[in-house]
Amino acid sequence: MNTLHFTAEATSNGIVERDFTVNGIPGVLWSPESGADRAALVLMGHGGGNHKKHPAMAGRARLLVNGCGFHVAVIDAPGHGDRPHTEHDEAEIAALFAARAAGEPESPIVVRYNDHLAKLAVPEYRALLDALQKLPAIGIDGPVGFWGINMGTAIGVPFVAAEPRITAAVFGQHWPDVLAEKAKHITVPIEFDLQWDDEHISREEGLALFDAFASTEKSLHVNSGKHKELPRFEADSAVRFFARHLVSAVTSLA
Amino acid sequence: MNTLHFTAEATSNGIVERDFTVNGIPGVLWSPESGADRAALVLMGHGGGNHKKHPAMAGRARLLVNGCGFHVAVIDAPGHGDRPHTEHDEAEIAALFAARAAGEPESPIVVRYNDHLAKLAVPEYRALLDALQKLPAIGIDGPVGFWGINMGTAIGVPFVAAEPRITAAVFGQHWPDVLAEKAKHITVPIEFDLQWDDEHISREEGLALFDAFASTEKSLHVNSGKHKELPRFEADSAVRFFARHLVSAVTSLA
Repeated sequence: MNTLHFTAEATSNGIVERDFTVNGIPGVLWSPESGADRAALVLMGHGGGNHKKHPAMAGRARLLVNGCGFHVAVIDAPGHGDRPHTEHDEAEIAALFAARAAGEPESPIVVRYNDHLAKLAVPEYRALLDALQKLPAIGIDGPVGFWGINMGTAIGVPFVAAEPRITAAVFGQHWPDVLAEKAKHITVPIEFDLQWDDEHISREEGLALFDAFASTEKSLHVNSGKHKELPRFEADSAVRFFARHLVSAVTSLA
Repeated sequence: MNTLHFTAEATSNGIVERDFTVNGIPGVLWSPESGADRAALVLMGHGGGNHKKHPAMAGRARLLVNGCGFHVAVIDAPGHGDRPHTEHDEAEIAALFAARAAGEPESPIVVRYNDHLAKLAVPEYRALLDALQKLPAIGIDGPVGFWGINMGTAIGVPFVAAEPRITAAVFGQHWPDVLAEKAKHITVPIEFDLQWDDEHISREEGLALFDAFASTEKSLHVNSGKHKELPRFEADSAVRFFARHLVSAVTSLA
Protein backbone atom coordinates (compact mmCIF):
# COMPACT_ATOMS: atom_id res chain seq x y z
CA MET A 1 0.00 0.00 0.00
CA ASN A 2 1.34 3.40 -1.00
CA THR A 3 4.55 1.84 -2.29
CA LEU A 4 6.31 2.72 -5.54
CA HIS A 5 6.83 -0.11 -8.02
CA PHE A 6 9.49 0.87 -10.53
CA THR A 7 8.79 -0.46 -14.01
CA ALA A 8 11.48 1.13 -16.20
CA GLU A 9 14.64 3.16 -15.88
CA ALA A 10 16.65 5.23 -18.33
CA THR A 11 19.47 7.72 -17.85
CA SER A 12 20.39 10.60 -20.11
CA ASN A 13 22.20 13.90 -19.67
CA GLY A 14 22.70 13.36 -15.96
CA ILE A 15 19.06 12.59 -15.21
CA VAL A 16 17.65 9.23 -14.17
CA GLU A 17 14.06 8.80 -15.36
CA ARG A 18 12.16 6.01 -13.61
CA ASP A 19 8.63 4.98 -14.52
CA PHE A 20 6.60 3.64 -11.61
CA THR A 21 3.13 2.81 -10.42
CA VAL A 22 1.71 3.61 -7.03
CA ASN A 23 -1.58 1.91 -6.15
CA GLY A 24 -1.81 1.13 -9.86
CA ILE A 25 -1.45 4.76 -10.97
CA PRO A 26 1.36 5.39 -13.47
CA GLY A 27 3.95 8.03 -12.72
CA VAL A 28 7.49 9.13 -13.41
CA LEU A 29 10.33 10.13 -11.10
CA TRP A 30 13.24 12.20 -12.38
CA SER A 31 16.38 12.30 -10.20
CA PRO A 32 19.97 13.52 -10.47
CA GLU A 33 22.25 10.74 -11.72
CA SER A 34 24.88 11.81 -9.25
CA GLY A 35 22.63 10.48 -6.52
CA ALA A 36 21.77 13.43 -4.36
CA ASP A 37 21.16 12.23 -0.83
CA ARG A 38 18.13 13.68 0.93
CA ALA A 39 17.51 16.19 -1.84
CA ALA A 40 14.31 18.19 -1.98
CA LEU A 41 11.32 16.87 -3.92
CA VAL A 42 8.95 18.72 -6.23
CA LEU A 43 5.62 17.09 -7.13
CA MET A 44 4.09 18.34 -10.36
CA GLY A 45 0.60 18.24 -11.83
CA HIS A 46 0.16 18.25 -15.60
CA GLY A 47 -2.32 20.30 -17.61
CA GLY A 48 -5.72 19.20 -18.89
CA GLY A 49 -5.56 16.86 -21.87
CA ASN A 50 -1.86 16.22 -21.26
CA HIS A 51 0.03 13.56 -19.35
CA LYS A 52 2.94 12.90 -17.01
CA LYS A 53 5.62 12.97 -19.72
CA HIS A 54 4.32 15.92 -21.71
CA PRO A 55 7.27 18.07 -22.86
CA ALA A 56 6.24 20.77 -20.37
CA MET A 57 6.63 18.24 -17.54
CA ALA A 58 9.90 16.78 -18.80
CA GLY A 59 11.28 20.27 -19.47
CA ARG A 60 10.44 21.54 -15.98
CA ALA A 61 11.88 18.38 -14.44
CA ARG A 62 15.12 18.91 -16.36
CA LEU A 63 15.42 22.45 -15.00
CA LEU A 64 14.77 21.29 -11.42
CA VAL A 65 17.07 18.26 -11.54
CA ASN A 66 19.94 19.90 -13.39
CA GLY A 67 19.54 23.32 -11.80
CA CYS A 68 18.85 22.35 -8.19
CA GLY A 69 19.60 18.64 -7.81
CA PHE A 70 15.97 18.01 -6.81
CA HIS A 71 13.83 14.93 -7.34
CA VAL A 72 10.70 15.55 -9.42
CA ALA A 73 7.63 13.33 -9.66
CA VAL A 74 4.36 13.48 -11.55
CA ILE A 75 1.48 11.02 -11.98
CA ASP A 76 -1.12 10.85 -14.70
CA ALA A 77 -4.32 12.59 -13.58
CA PRO A 78 -7.53 10.53 -13.58
CA GLY A 79 -8.76 10.04 -17.15
CA HIS A 80 -5.39 11.19 -18.55
CA GLY A 81 -2.25 9.64 -20.03
CA ASP A 82 -2.05 5.90 -19.52
CA ARG A 83 -5.14 5.78 -17.30
CA PRO A 84 -8.60 4.66 -18.48
CA HIS A 85 -11.21 7.19 -19.58
CA THR A 86 -14.55 6.77 -17.83
CA GLU A 87 -17.89 7.53 -19.45
CA HIS A 88 -17.93 10.66 -17.31
CA ASP A 89 -14.56 11.72 -18.76
CA GLU A 90 -15.81 11.14 -22.30
CA ALA A 91 -19.00 13.11 -21.65
CA GLU A 92 -17.15 16.09 -20.14
CA ILE A 93 -14.59 16.18 -22.92
CA ALA A 94 -17.41 16.05 -25.48
CA ALA A 95 -19.16 18.92 -23.67
CA LEU A 96 -15.92 20.92 -23.72
CA PHE A 97 -15.39 20.39 -27.43
CA ALA A 98 -19.04 21.26 -28.13
CA ALA A 99 -18.74 24.51 -26.16
CA ARG A 100 -15.51 25.34 -27.98
CA ALA A 101 -17.11 24.63 -31.38
CA ALA A 102 -20.13 26.76 -30.49
CA GLY A 103 -17.93 29.63 -29.29
CA GLU A 104 -19.39 29.33 -25.79
CA PRO A 105 -17.33 29.80 -22.63
CA GLU A 106 -15.31 26.76 -21.62
CA SER A 107 -14.97 27.77 -18.00
CA PRO A 108 -18.16 26.21 -16.56
CA ILE A 109 -17.17 22.82 -17.95
CA VAL A 110 -13.47 23.04 -17.11
CA VAL A 111 -14.17 24.25 -13.57
CA ARG A 112 -16.61 21.43 -12.75
CA TYR A 113 -14.66 18.69 -14.56
CA ASN A 114 -11.35 19.70 -12.97
CA ASP A 115 -13.06 19.82 -9.57
CA HIS A 116 -14.29 16.27 -10.16
CA LEU A 117 -10.78 15.12 -11.13
CA ALA A 118 -9.21 16.94 -8.18
CA LYS A 119 -11.43 15.08 -5.73
CA LEU A 120 -10.01 11.84 -7.13
CA ALA A 121 -6.45 13.09 -7.49
CA VAL A 122 -5.83 14.63 -4.06
CA PRO A 123 -5.72 11.28 -2.21
CA GLU A 124 -3.60 9.91 -5.06
CA TYR A 125 -1.04 12.68 -4.60
CA ARG A 126 -0.99 12.13 -0.83
CA ALA A 127 -0.33 8.41 -1.41
CA LEU A 128 2.36 9.31 -3.95
CA LEU A 129 4.09 11.49 -1.38
CA ASP A 130 3.88 8.75 1.25
CA ALA A 131 5.51 6.34 -1.19
CA LEU A 132 8.23 8.74 -2.34
CA GLN A 133 9.20 9.58 1.23
CA LYS A 134 9.96 5.89 1.80
CA LEU A 135 12.83 6.17 -0.69
CA PRO A 136 16.15 6.69 1.14
CA ALA A 137 17.21 9.40 -1.33
CA ILE A 138 14.14 11.47 -0.42
CA GLY A 139 13.22 10.60 3.17
CA ILE A 140 10.43 11.81 5.41
CA ASP A 141 11.89 15.10 6.55
CA GLY A 142 13.03 16.79 3.37
CA PRO A 143 11.36 19.85 1.88
CA VAL A 144 8.62 19.22 -0.69
CA GLY A 145 7.18 21.61 -3.27
CA PHE A 146 4.25 21.44 -5.68
CA TRP A 147 4.15 22.88 -9.21
CA GLY A 148 1.04 22.80 -11.38
CA ILE A 149 -0.54 25.28 -13.82
CA ASN A 150 -4.04 25.02 -15.34
CA MET A 151 -5.45 21.62 -14.30
CA GLY A 152 -2.32 21.20 -12.21
CA THR A 153 -3.59 24.13 -10.15
CA ALA A 154 -7.12 22.68 -9.92
CA ILE A 155 -5.59 19.55 -8.37
CA GLY A 156 -2.73 21.27 -6.57
CA VAL A 157 -4.68 23.89 -4.63
CA PRO A 158 -6.89 21.39 -2.74
CA PHE A 159 -3.89 19.06 -2.41
CA VAL A 160 -1.61 21.71 -0.89
CA ALA A 161 -4.45 23.00 1.30
CA ALA A 162 -4.81 19.49 2.74
CA GLU A 163 -1.13 18.54 2.87
CA PRO A 164 1.14 20.13 5.48
CA ARG A 165 4.23 18.47 3.99
CA ILE A 166 4.18 20.89 1.03
CA THR A 167 6.22 23.96 1.92
CA ALA A 168 6.15 26.01 -1.32
CA ALA A 169 4.01 25.92 -4.46
CA VAL A 170 3.74 27.36 -7.97
CA PHE A 171 0.22 27.70 -9.35
CA GLY A 172 -1.58 29.65 -12.04
CA GLN A 173 -4.16 30.05 -14.77
CA HIS A 174 -7.38 28.82 -13.19
CA TRP A 175 -10.70 30.23 -11.99
CA PRO A 176 -11.56 31.20 -8.41
CA ASP A 177 -15.04 29.60 -8.37
CA VAL A 178 -14.07 26.37 -6.63
CA LEU A 179 -10.46 27.06 -5.71
CA ALA A 180 -10.58 30.39 -3.85
CA GLU A 181 -12.17 28.83 -0.76
CA LYS A 182 -9.42 26.21 -0.63
CA ALA A 183 -6.68 28.75 -1.34
CA LYS A 184 -7.69 30.56 1.85
CA HIS A 185 -6.23 27.61 3.76
CA ILE A 186 -2.83 27.81 2.06
CA THR A 187 -0.18 29.75 3.97
CA VAL A 188 3.08 28.54 2.38
CA PRO A 189 4.97 30.76 -0.08
CA ILE A 190 3.47 30.69 -3.58
CA GLU A 191 4.27 31.99 -7.03
CA PHE A 192 1.24 32.41 -9.28
CA ASP A 193 1.14 32.88 -13.06
CA LEU A 194 -1.59 34.48 -15.08
CA GLN A 195 -1.91 35.76 -18.61
CA TRP A 196 -3.12 39.34 -19.07
CA ASP A 197 -4.95 38.56 -22.33
CA ASP A 198 -6.27 35.12 -21.41
CA GLU A 199 -9.30 34.41 -23.57
CA HIS A 200 -10.74 32.00 -20.98
CA ILE A 201 -9.84 33.43 -17.57
CA SER A 202 -10.65 37.11 -17.01
CA ARG A 203 -8.19 39.38 -15.21
CA GLU A 204 -10.66 39.74 -12.34
CA GLU A 205 -10.97 35.97 -11.99
CA GLY A 206 -7.22 35.41 -12.10
CA LEU A 207 -6.52 38.19 -9.58
CA ALA A 208 -9.30 36.93 -7.30
CA LEU A 209 -7.70 33.50 -7.06
CA PHE A 210 -4.26 34.99 -6.38
CA ASP A 211 -5.77 37.26 -3.74
CA ALA A 212 -7.42 34.33 -1.95
CA PHE A 213 -4.18 32.65 -0.84
CA ALA A 214 -3.49 33.26 2.84
CA SER A 215 0.27 33.08 2.24
CA THR A 216 2.22 35.97 3.73
CA GLU A 217 4.81 35.45 0.97
CA LYS A 218 3.19 35.38 -2.43
CA SER A 219 4.21 36.59 -5.88
CA LEU A 220 2.06 37.09 -8.94
CA HIS A 221 3.59 37.00 -12.41
CA VAL A 222 1.37 38.44 -15.10
CA ASN A 223 2.46 38.40 -18.72
CA SER A 224 0.91 39.84 -21.83
CA GLY A 225 -0.46 37.17 -24.11
CA LYS A 226 -3.20 34.59 -24.41
CA HIS A 227 -3.92 31.48 -22.35
CA LYS A 228 -1.40 29.25 -24.07
CA GLU A 229 1.30 31.90 -24.37
CA LEU A 230 2.72 31.66 -20.83
CA PRO A 231 6.36 32.61 -21.50
CA ARG A 232 9.02 29.94 -21.20
CA PHE A 233 10.99 32.16 -18.79
CA GLU A 234 8.28 31.64 -16.15
CA ALA A 235 9.52 28.06 -15.83
CA ASP A 236 12.99 29.42 -15.02
CA SER A 237 11.39 31.76 -12.50
CA ALA A 238 9.52 28.87 -10.85
CA VAL A 239 12.77 26.93 -10.54
CA ARG A 240 14.42 29.90 -8.83
CA PHE A 241 11.38 30.16 -6.54
CA PHE A 242 11.82 26.52 -5.48
CA ALA A 243 15.57 27.02 -5.13
CA ARG A 244 14.91 29.90 -2.71
CA HIS A 245 12.34 28.04 -0.66
CA LEU A 246 13.47 24.42 -0.74
CA VAL A 247 17.25 24.54 -0.99
CA SER A 248 17.84 26.26 2.34
CA ALA A 249 16.02 23.41 4.07
CA VAL A 250 18.21 20.77 2.43
CA THR A 251 21.23 19.64 4.45
CA SER A 252 23.10 17.94 1.61
CA LEU A 253 22.67 18.81 -2.03
CA ALA A 254 24.36 17.33 -5.06
CA MET B 1 27.31 70.60 -24.65
CA ASN B 2 25.99 67.20 -23.62
CA THR B 3 29.48 65.97 -22.82
CA LEU B 4 30.53 63.96 -19.78
CA HIS B 5 33.20 65.46 -17.54
CA PHE B 6 34.70 62.77 -15.36
CA THR B 7 35.59 64.02 -11.88
CA ALA B 8 36.64 60.90 -9.98
CA GLU B 9 37.38 57.24 -10.61
CA ALA B 10 37.64 54.24 -8.31
CA THR B 11 37.80 50.52 -9.02
CA SER B 12 36.72 47.71 -6.72
CA ASN B 13 35.60 44.12 -7.22
CA GLY B 14 35.86 44.33 -10.99
CA ILE B 15 33.75 47.48 -11.29
CA VAL B 16 34.98 50.91 -12.34
CA GLU B 17 32.93 53.69 -10.73
CA ARG B 18 33.34 57.07 -12.38
CA ASP B 19 31.72 60.25 -11.08
CA PHE B 20 30.87 62.78 -13.77
CA THR B 21 28.87 65.86 -14.55
CA VAL B 22 26.86 66.46 -17.68
CA ASN B 23 25.65 70.03 -18.22
CA GLY B 24 26.53 70.55 -14.56
CA ILE B 25 24.36 67.67 -13.30
CA PRO B 26 26.21 65.12 -11.15
CA GLY B 27 26.07 61.47 -12.09
CA VAL B 28 27.86 58.17 -11.79
CA LEU B 29 28.84 55.58 -14.40
CA TRP B 30 29.59 51.99 -13.39
CA SER B 31 31.44 49.83 -15.95
CA PRO B 32 33.12 46.44 -16.07
CA GLU B 33 36.84 46.74 -15.26
CA SER B 34 37.63 44.25 -18.00
CA GLY B 35 36.64 46.92 -20.50
CA ALA B 36 33.67 45.54 -22.37
CA ASP B 37 33.61 47.01 -25.84
CA ARG B 38 30.25 48.20 -27.11
CA ALA B 39 28.41 46.71 -24.17
CA ALA B 40 24.79 47.54 -23.50
CA LEU B 41 23.87 50.47 -21.27
CA VAL B 42 21.22 50.72 -18.57
CA LEU B 43 20.15 54.15 -17.35
CA MET B 44 18.62 54.19 -13.89
CA GLY B 45 16.43 56.64 -12.00
CA HIS B 46 16.60 56.73 -8.20
CA GLY B 47 13.70 56.91 -5.77
CA GLY B 48 12.25 60.02 -4.13
CA GLY B 49 14.39 61.40 -1.32
CA ASN B 50 17.35 59.28 -2.44
CA HIS B 51 20.30 59.96 -4.71
CA LYS B 52 22.49 58.51 -7.45
CA LYS B 53 24.66 56.42 -5.11
CA HIS B 54 21.93 55.16 -2.79
CA PRO B 55 22.64 51.49 -1.92
CA ALA B 56 19.70 50.43 -4.12
CA MET B 57 21.39 52.10 -7.10
CA ALA B 58 24.87 50.77 -6.34
CA GLY B 59 23.46 47.29 -5.68
CA ARG B 60 21.53 47.15 -8.96
CA ALA B 61 24.56 48.45 -10.83
CA ARG B 62 26.72 45.71 -9.31
CA LEU B 63 24.25 43.06 -10.52
CA LEU B 64 24.16 44.53 -14.04
CA VAL B 65 27.92 45.06 -14.38
CA ASN B 66 29.01 41.77 -12.82
CA GLY B 67 26.13 39.70 -14.17
CA CYS B 68 25.85 41.07 -17.69
CA GLY B 69 28.93 43.19 -18.38
CA PHE B 70 26.70 46.24 -18.94
CA HIS B 71 27.43 49.91 -18.31
CA VAL B 72 25.08 51.56 -15.81
CA ALA B 73 24.52 55.27 -15.31
CA VAL B 74 22.37 57.37 -13.01
CA ILE B 75 22.14 61.11 -12.35
CA ASP B 76 20.79 62.93 -9.32
CA ALA B 77 17.20 64.00 -9.93
CA PRO B 78 16.40 67.71 -9.63
CA GLY B 79 16.33 68.74 -5.96
CA HIS B 80 18.06 65.49 -4.95
CA GLY B 81 21.53 64.30 -3.95
CA ASP B 82 24.25 66.85 -4.70
CA ARG B 83 21.87 69.21 -6.51
CA PRO B 84 20.40 72.36 -4.96
CA HIS B 85 16.93 72.35 -3.40
CA THR B 86 14.68 75.10 -4.71
CA GLU B 87 12.00 76.81 -2.64
CA HIS B 88 9.49 74.74 -4.58
CA ASP B 89 11.29 71.53 -3.53
CA GLU B 90 11.27 72.64 0.10
CA ALA B 91 7.57 73.50 -0.01
CA GLU B 92 6.60 70.19 -1.58
CA ILE B 93 8.69 68.17 0.85
CA ALA B 94 7.13 70.11 3.74
CA ALA B 95 3.66 69.40 2.32
CA LEU B 96 4.53 65.70 2.04
CA PHE B 97 5.75 65.52 5.64
CA ALA B 98 2.67 67.43 6.83
CA ALA B 99 0.34 65.01 5.02
CA ARG B 100 2.26 62.07 6.46
CA ALA B 101 2.08 63.50 9.99
CA ALA B 102 -1.65 64.16 9.61
CA GLY B 103 -2.27 60.63 8.30
CA GLU B 104 -3.54 62.06 5.01
CA PRO B 105 -2.85 60.44 1.63
CA GLU B 106 0.58 61.24 0.21
CA SER B 107 -0.36 60.48 -3.36
CA PRO B 108 -1.70 63.90 -4.47
CA ILE B 109 1.56 65.54 -3.40
CA VAL B 110 3.89 62.83 -4.69
CA VAL B 111 2.10 62.65 -8.04
CA ARG B 112 2.24 66.41 -8.69
CA TYR B 113 5.79 66.88 -7.30
CA ASN B 114 7.19 63.94 -9.25
CA ASP B 115 5.48 65.22 -12.38
CA HIS B 116 7.18 68.58 -11.84
CA LEU B 117 10.55 66.88 -11.39
CA ALA B 118 10.01 64.63 -14.41
CA LYS B 119 9.45 67.64 -16.67
CA LEU B 120 12.90 68.88 -15.63
CA ALA B 121 14.56 65.47 -15.65
CA VAL B 122 13.47 64.12 -19.06
CA PRO B 123 15.66 66.51 -21.08
CA GLU B 124 18.48 65.86 -18.60
CA TYR B 125 18.27 62.11 -19.24
CA ARG B 126 18.20 62.66 -22.99
CA ALA B 127 21.34 64.80 -22.72
CA LEU B 128 22.92 62.14 -20.50
CA LEU B 129 22.27 59.51 -23.14
CA ASP B 130 23.70 61.74 -25.87
CA ALA B 131 26.86 62.18 -23.79
CA LEU B 132 27.22 58.50 -22.87
CA GLN B 133 26.85 57.41 -26.48
CA LYS B 134 29.89 59.53 -27.34
CA LEU B 135 32.03 57.19 -25.23
CA PRO B 136 33.75 54.58 -27.45
CA ALA B 137 32.92 51.77 -24.98
CA ILE B 138 29.19 52.51 -25.39
CA GLY B 139 28.70 53.97 -28.86
CA ILE B 140 25.60 55.18 -30.65
CA ASP B 141 24.17 51.90 -31.82
CA GLY B 142 24.18 49.71 -28.71
CA PRO B 143 21.04 48.64 -26.85
CA VAL B 144 19.91 50.88 -23.99
CA GLY B 145 17.57 50.04 -21.12
CA PHE B 146 15.95 52.12 -18.37
CA TRP B 147 15.32 50.98 -14.78
CA GLY B 148 13.47 53.11 -12.24
CA ILE B 149 10.95 52.33 -9.49
CA ASN B 150 8.88 54.90 -7.55
CA MET B 151 10.13 58.36 -8.58
CA GLY B 152 12.36 56.55 -11.08
CA THR B 153 9.15 55.49 -12.80
CA ALA B 154 7.67 59.00 -12.65
CA ILE B 155 10.73 60.23 -14.54
CA GLY B 156 11.28 57.09 -16.60
CA VAL B 157 7.83 56.70 -18.14
CA PRO B 158 7.81 60.13 -19.86
CA PHE B 159 11.51 59.69 -20.70
CA VAL B 160 11.04 56.29 -22.36
CA ALA B 161 7.86 57.49 -24.08
CA ALA B 162 9.90 60.30 -25.66
CA GLU B 163 13.11 58.39 -26.31
CA PRO B 164 13.26 55.82 -29.10
CA ARG B 165 16.77 54.75 -28.10
CA ILE B 166 15.42 52.91 -25.03
CA THR B 167 14.55 49.34 -26.02
CA ALA B 168 13.52 47.77 -22.68
CA ALA B 169 12.48 49.17 -19.30
CA VAL B 170 11.73 48.15 -15.72
CA PHE B 171 9.21 50.31 -13.89
CA GLY B 172 6.92 50.04 -10.89
CA GLN B 173 5.19 51.44 -7.83
CA HIS B 174 3.59 54.65 -9.05
CA TRP B 175 0.13 56.04 -9.73
CA PRO B 176 -1.62 56.15 -13.12
CA ASP B 177 -2.94 59.74 -12.80
CA VAL B 178 -0.21 61.44 -14.82
CA LEU B 179 1.71 58.46 -16.16
CA ALA B 180 -0.95 56.27 -17.80
CA GLU B 181 -1.37 58.66 -20.73
CA LYS B 182 2.37 58.59 -21.35
CA ALA B 183 2.59 54.83 -20.87
CA LYS B 184 0.21 54.42 -23.81
CA HIS B 185 3.05 55.60 -26.06
CA ILE B 186 5.52 52.98 -24.79
CA THR B 187 5.77 49.84 -26.91
CA VAL B 188 9.10 48.33 -25.83
CA PRO B 189 9.18 45.29 -23.49
CA ILE B 190 8.64 46.20 -19.86
CA GLU B 191 8.73 44.53 -16.47
CA PHE B 192 6.60 46.26 -13.84
CA ASP B 193 6.69 45.79 -10.05
CA LEU B 194 3.91 46.45 -7.62
CA GLN B 195 3.25 45.59 -4.01
CA TRP B 196 -0.06 43.88 -3.20
CA ASP B 197 -0.37 45.54 0.22
CA ASP B 198 0.99 48.96 -0.72
CA GLU B 199 -0.33 51.48 1.78
CA HIS B 200 0.01 54.35 -0.72
CA ILE B 201 -0.81 52.87 -4.14
CA SER B 202 -4.02 50.86 -4.41
CA ARG B 203 -4.14 47.62 -6.37
CA GLU B 204 -6.48 49.24 -8.88
CA GLU B 205 -4.10 52.17 -9.40
CA GLY B 206 -1.07 49.92 -9.80
CA LEU B 207 -2.85 47.59 -12.23
CA ALA B 208 -4.22 50.56 -14.21
CA LEU B 209 -0.71 51.88 -14.83
CA PHE B 210 0.57 48.43 -15.87
CA ASP B 211 -2.42 48.02 -18.16
CA ALA B 212 -1.76 51.36 -19.87
CA PHE B 213 1.55 50.34 -21.47
CA ALA B 214 1.11 49.61 -25.18
CA SER B 215 3.97 47.06 -25.08
CA THR B 216 3.12 43.72 -26.64
CA GLU B 217 5.65 42.14 -24.28
CA LYS B 218 5.00 43.14 -20.71
CA SER B 219 5.32 41.38 -17.36
CA LEU B 220 3.84 42.37 -14.02
CA HIS B 221 5.44 41.18 -10.80
CA VAL B 222 3.20 41.57 -7.77
CA ASN B 223 4.47 40.63 -4.32
CA SER B 224 2.78 40.53 -0.97
CA GLY B 225 3.99 43.28 1.34
CA LYS B 226 3.91 47.02 1.83
CA HIS B 227 5.31 49.84 -0.28
CA LYS B 228 8.88 49.58 1.00
CA GLU B 229 8.94 45.77 1.07
CA LEU B 230 9.66 45.13 -2.63
CA PRO B 231 11.63 41.86 -2.37
CA ARG B 232 15.32 41.90 -3.14
CA PHE B 233 14.84 39.08 -5.67
CA GLU B 234 12.96 41.49 -7.96
CA ALA B 235 16.31 43.18 -8.63
CA ASP B 236 17.68 39.82 -9.81
CA SER B 237 14.59 39.41 -11.97
CA ALA B 238 15.08 42.85 -13.52
CA VAL B 239 18.69 41.97 -14.34
CA ARG B 240 17.54 38.78 -16.10
CA PHE B 241 14.94 40.87 -17.98
CA PHE B 242 17.66 43.20 -19.25
CA ALA B 243 19.89 40.23 -20.06
CA ARG B 244 17.08 38.77 -22.22
CA HIS B 245 16.33 42.01 -24.02
CA LEU B 246 19.67 43.79 -24.27
CA VAL B 247 22.26 41.02 -24.54
CA SER B 248 21.03 39.58 -27.82
CA ALA B 249 21.55 42.98 -29.43
CA VAL B 250 25.15 43.21 -28.25
CA THR B 251 27.77 42.02 -30.68
CA SER B 252 30.65 41.75 -28.23
CA LEU B 253 30.21 41.20 -24.52
CA ALA B 254 32.83 40.89 -21.82
